[in-house]
Amino acid sequence: MRFITEATSDGVTERHFTVGDAPGVVWAPAGAAGPRPLVLLGHGGGGHKTAASIVARARRYVTGSGFAVAAIDAPGWGGRPIPAGYETYNAEIEELTAAGKPLGEAYARRGVVVAALAIPEWRATIDALAGLDWVGAGGAVPVGYWGVSLGSAIGVPLVAAEPRITAAVLGLMGHETLTEAAAEITVPVEFLLQWDDEIVPREAGLALFDAIGSAEKTLHANPGGHMDVPMFEVDSSERFFARHLTS
Amino acid sequence: MRFITEATSDGVTERHFTVGDAPGVVWAPAGAAGPRPLVLLGHGGGGHKTAASIVARARRYVTGSGFAVAAIDAPGWGGRPIPAGYETYNAEIEELTAAGKPLGEAYARRGVVVAALAIPEWRATIDALAGLDWVGAGGAVPVGYWGVSLGSAIGVPLVAAEPRITAAVLGLMGHETLTEAAAEITVPVEFLLQWDDEIVPREAGLALFDAIGSAEKTLHANPGGHMDVPMFEVDSSERFFARHLTS
Repeated sequence: MRFITEATSDGVTERHFTVGDAPGVVWAPAGAAGPRPLVLLGHGGGGHKTAASIVARARRYVTGSGFAVAAIDAPGWGGRPIPAGYETYNAEIEELTAAGKPLGEAYARRGVVVAALAIPEWRATIDALAGLDWVGAGGAVPVGYWGVSLGSAIGVPLVAAEPRITAAVLGLMGHETLTEAAAEITVPVEFLLQWDDEIVPREAGLALFDAIGSAEKTLHANPGGHMDVPMFEVDSSERFFARHLTS
Repeated sequence: MRFITEATSDGVTERHFTVGDAPGVVWAPAGAAGPRPLVLLGHGGGGHKTAASIVARARRYVTGSGFAVAAIDAPGWGGRPIPAGYETYNAEIEELTAAGKPLGEAYARRGVVVAALAIPEWRATIDALAGLDWVGAGGAVPVGYWGVSLGSAIGVPLVAAEPRITAAVLGLMGHETLTEAAAEITVPVEFLLQWDDEIVPREAGLALFDAIGSAEKTLHANPGGHMDVPMFEVDSSERFFARHLTS
């Protein structure tokens, strides 16, 4: 892990870093000392690690709950080079977009390729952050993962594979490519579904929620399209992480 | 409105009353003075106005948010005489129970009769409580309604009909008898659904949520049976009422 820049405003310190090829950012209370829970934010397909909604959420979790919060750009996003493995999917997505056809299926299949590349980067990020004295201090750190849409295409298999993640907010996603990984998840999950999602069919979202193996999982469905998740779900996710990551 | 008893413990004053034939109870902070939001609690088919879960929820809303909270026994519950209009349904429910058959359909059809009797009693209760100087003080009081299962068989048409109710938590219910009233609801709704409900089929619950006319409605679905709503939904409902009933 290599730190690049550091800036503090309104009580929050934002540090940019790289872990291997992945550019990332970690937010923490200014002057933070000692271990604290870590929440990972997985951006959506239209975003990147410092998209406005990601930064706002990060600052909220830091100022509200004192967490450390980290985001990395997914391979191919945030100005990173497009991996060769996306090419056929991106061509298909371009054609579907031009034809005004639904994109959810193509997004989900590309998501499998994205996840395979992104998961090792997230795991290296946890490794590196856990060692900082103001995050894990080298010990066991409670880790939460928040990511919807593309953030769940990556997040569902990541949460299934990574035992250090003990609570996750997922959603705006639903496809059979994720069913097997979803069934392997055992940690508490809050799952977001948009009732009138133009990208993810309602039944596919409900089926993915159904597939999650966790004893504690809670579905939050709201009216509106893929981008219309109401602001009160930010509050809800913060309380969810506070409930599961703080003792 | 006639007050019968009054007792205070742990900072909460509980007053029993009658409005017409309906026996009720209202909880408020000890020594409460001045207007405050009012939350109505509609008990379920296995309960009554002072069932343990109702009392616990009422005390929570009082101590956590300073609300006044009221519950009344539905006609035929809490020791009240069984209305003649229930007879055919109760006979059917007995037969279905003995045969080990699903009860949701019969409950819902009886619920229509219960609601017709209960709604005027709830409206009279709001009238009476709104006049108290430690609830509405004679002015406009923000009113919330919480009620699931039987509490929603009554609550869905009540919330549709009563403009003083400006926010409602409903759920554990779903039947075509409620579709029309649900479509007339325009206030914010938090709707609870149990994913493995043995009384209300999943599709029927989802369809009732879908039918609600409100621009702001949020579905909270959790694993488990009809009686297994997780405790964190009590917190969620309190925050929902605080968001909508306090300015």
